[in-house]
Amino acid sequence: MSQTFTVTELAALTEAKSVVGERQGGLKSIASLSEAGPDDLSFLGNPRYVAEVATSEAGAILVPLDYAGQPRANQVYLRVEKPSYALALLCGVLEARLWPKPAAGIHPSAVIDPTAKVESTASVGPQCVIGPGAVVGAGVVLEAHCTVGVNASIGADSWLKPRVVIGDYCVVGARCRLQAGVVLGSDGFGYEPVGTEIRRIPQIGNVVLEDDVEIGANSTLDRARFSQTVIGRGSKIDNLVQIGHNVRIGRHCIIVAQVGIAGSVVLGDYCVVGGQAGIAGHIKLGNRVQVGAQAGVLEDIPEGQFVNGTPAIPFGLERRLVVLSRRLPDLFKKVDSLASSLDAVRKSNP
Amino acid sequence: MSQTFTVTELAALTEAKSVVGERQGGLKSIASLSEAGPDDLSFLGNPRYVAEVATSEAGAILVPLDYAGQPRANQVYLRVEKPSYALALLCGVLEARLWPKPAAGIHPSAVIDPTAKVESTASVGPQCVIGPGAVVGAGVVLEAHCTVGVNASIGADSWLKPRVVIGDYCVVGARCRLQAGVVLGSDGFGYEPVGTEIRRIPQIGNVVLEDDVEIGANSTLDRARFSQTVIGRGSKIDNLVQIGHNVRIGRHCIIVAQVGIAGSVVLGDYCVVGGQAGIAGHIKLGNRVQVGAQAGVLEDIPEGQFVNGTPAIPFGLERRLVVLSRRLPDLFKKVDSLASSLDAVRKSNP
Amino acid sequence: MSQTFTVTELAALTEAKSVVGERQGGLKSIASLSEAGPDDLSFLGNPRYVAEVATSEAGAILVPLDYAGQPRANQVYLRVEKPSYALALLCGVLEARLWPKPAAGIHPSAVIDPTAKVESTASVGPQCVIGPGAVVGAGVVLEAHCTVGVNASIGADSWLKPRVVIGDYCVVGARCRLQAGVVLGSDGFGYEPVGTEIRRIPQIGNVVLEDDVEIGANSTLDRARFSQTVIGRGSKIDNLVQIGHNVRIGRHCIIVAQVGIAGSVVLGDYCVVGGQAGIAGHIKLGNRVQVGAQAGVLEDIPEGQFVNGTPAIPFGLERRLVVLSRRLPDLFKKVDSLASSLDAVRKSNP
Repeated sequence: MSQTFTVTELAALTEAKSVVGERQGGLKSIASLSEAGPDDLSFLGNPRYVAEVATSEAGAILVPLDYAGQPRANQVYLRVEKPSYALALLCGVLEARLWPKPAAGIHPSAVIDPTAKVESTASVGPQCVIGPGAVVGAGVVLEAHCTVGVNASIGADSWLKPRVVIGDYCVVGARCRLQAGVVLGSDGFGYEPVGTEIRRIPQIGNVVLEDDVEIGANSTLDRARFSQTVIGRGSKIDNLVQIGHNVRIGRHCIIVAQVGIAGSVVLGDYCVVGGQAGIAGHIKLGNRVQVGAQAGVLEDIPEGQFVNGTPAIPFGLERRLVVLSRRLPDLFKKVDSLASSLDAVRKSNP
Repeated sequence: MSQTFTVTELAALTEAKSVVGERQGGLKSIASLSEAGPDDLSFLGNPRYVAEVATSEAGAILVPLDYAGQPRANQVYLRVEKPSYALALLCGVLEARLWPKPAAGIHPSAVIDPTAKVESTASVGPQCVIGPGAVVGAGVVLEAHCTVGVNASIGADSWLKPRVVIGDYCVVGARCRLQAGVVLGSDGFGYEPVGTEIRRIPQIGNVVLEDDVEIGANSTLDRARFSQTVIGRGSKIDNLVQIGHNVRIGRHCIIVAQVGIAGSVVLGDYCVVGGQAGIAGHIKLGNRVQVGAQAGVLEDIPEGQFVNGTPAIPFGLERRLVVLSRRLPDLFKKVDSLASSLDAVRKSNP
Repeated sequence: MSQTFTVTELAALTEAKSVVGERQGGLKSIASLSEAGPDDLSFLGNPRYVAEVATSEAGAILVPLDYAGQPRANQVYLRVEKPSYALALLCGVLEARLWPKPAAGIHPSAVIDPTAKVESTASVGPQCVIGPGAVVGAGVVLEAHCTVGVNASIGADSWLKPRVVIGDYCVVGARCRLQAGVVLGSDGFGYEPVGTEIRRIPQIGNVVLEDDVEIGANSTLDRARFSQTVIGRGSKIDNLVQIGHNVRIGRHCIIVAQVGIAGSVVLGDYCVVGGQAGIAGHIKLGNRVQVGAQAGVLEDIPEGQFVNGTPAIPFGLERRLVVLSRRLPDLFKKVDSLASSLDAVRKSNP
């Protein structure tokens, strides 16, 4: 936590309904039940760890309202509605202290084109480069080494970690959060054979992030061929994800690390795509579709379906096929044995 | 398009054979048939969308020479040999306007070693770093934050987007195009156990890109152990691809996003590797081999073969196995039923 | 090699037991047996290439002590204990010459917060950015465009290639080696649904690399939710690898390119994870576990086991299932034929 809180302060921050037990001295950090020491705060976030509460040496533990046990000496329980949420409240306070918003202003080492418009409340870090016609909105934070391309724009209160590249003509909405190394607006991967060579198809569209989108470290999002690659409001994309040109992702989707989404794919709202999954070009996923980790989606998936495997099929069927495939050795034996028995029957009944 | 074209201008740019219909006013942007409005140009790039031409509200539509219908009021058809190619002609013109080549010269914030040689017609962007002995050829463009290592060289008219890293001693050919975040010349991943530790094997080779190679955003190419990792002339590599040390890729290959190619793999010419596929170390692929998306190649593949699955096998066989595996539930039932029937036969014929 | 060595020099550097044959002139570079010319050194690193020694045109060849043949005219054999190790000795010498440690000091274009502590023997390259409270240890090398965040620290003699991002509060041990583009300390990917929105869970922990850790180009390691993401001493991670929040990797593990390890996974010591494999959240792997390339690990794996496939199962079983699955076409036929035969038996024995 990098700072010390009294029990009273913690109770207030975590919206505790009551404090059970007594304790001298503050709490200095957060740890899991099994790893916590006397100066640590811990929490019962998952019922399967309930047995660890009684043996935890934590100085303070966030427990649900219905937790029955009693704290040991110099230990307190903070009774809360939902320990995981209570912890997030505390972590939010800590995060705001650990990552205070940088002061507004432009670092002298940044290179800003005179035709760019940077709001006075924005913070532009060391060695950022902002191109002609670019717009950096109110309260935006650009950490070190970010580049904002020609005529690109970044909406109010978005926060870009170090060396994010916002390609020319791309648009970032308000309150977006981009981790280090994101590339927005790389060329779409479009080629066509011409004689014995391969010719690049020009890619003149852009990428649009709607409001409240978050993108993970070193992920790449290609510009559209001539229109827009769009990530819908509130969607969250993890690290090392590839989004092809012309993709349209709906609102509030979750795309886990290392997913690859090929060109012109369309996702509805509230979709969840598991890590390392791939979606082939021009596929459409309805709202609330879930794709399992490492799956390979080769056809359209209707609303609400959960698919798994490569090629992806409904989750239950896929799990059943996996179970049956493990029984293949027995099946082969059984068929051999049937063949022998049948042979015997035929010989004895000529 | 960010600019307005008259029908006459568009007809010339797209090499139209004829214009059907009449229209007042210019065209402002490009859109698909179903999304286009009266100020948009659209195109029939794929026969399966043919029905959408008649209902499209586009102000102008690129249609093939044999398209039979007639435009609506204030709409024109531009008859062309191949609409997709015609559109690419137009996009090429637009791209040249949207991305004019930056003026030659070195940005004052760039750091250039006095022993580096930068041609006067090259453009070196803000905060680039060019090391001792490096050579930057005529007409090269380095956008912001690129680094060119010791004794590395970049051939004429290559274009590097922001923060590309050209490692020490690496060689980039002419007319190459590298998207943001590419790393050329990271250490090969070579280790050997020594007692209870793991010792790094020195990696003193380099990476060579032949002419007209293109590499996608955040892709990584490792330097060879002592010789060269080579990407052949005209090959195109997508985003987030990993190329191991000593790999040799032939000419005019297409490597789709998130592919991983392990050390010492050799690809022939005109190979195509689908997204997220992996190729194990020391494997050889002949010319014109195709590898399906997410496949895992564990053995050499002869010229012209199309393989799929993990471990990769000929495509047709793999598809057949997938179909059969979906019928496993029926097969298990059928075998059970056969066993029962056989039992019955044996009981009635003791 | 970029420099010429005499046979005598090479014999010393490779710890040769004896030199067979005679040769005029030095050796200029290293090449494989089949590609080497008269000015090249080659080596018999793998017994399967033994036949190539006799036909190799290399000027000098590292051969094992028991190699029976004799060199051709103007060719020498250097007899060594282990040719691959002997070559690594030579490459180590070459690497030290090709990559001499940069001189200590801070490049004038770097931006160093006045509260950061940079040891006088450290080398800080052009345009690095070092934040408040950061500590850069003795002998550390930061190449161009590296950023070291608030209160982050880097242990003695670690070497960071261009544009590595060390996130706020993260800790890098001694003698670590980070390739270009590594991101240490991106936010963990933690969200929870709140009504119709998705809310970010604050991620206030850090990442700790113990001593002698190496990380490949453009790999990403997320900071913990509130504690630490830890990479154990001596572990080596390849390019484009994703390490989720709260992951703990033991000592001397090898993680190959494009692996994805989800949040809270725990690996023991000496684990090896093959390329493109994935490990689901909260999984535990014992010591010396091996995971095959592209495998998907969905459950805990006990010490010493080698697993493969998705979902991952013991290697031998997985290989057997692959073999059997290829025989599915025959199995289906056989079952059909059994059914016909049984039918015939039943008809003739009513």
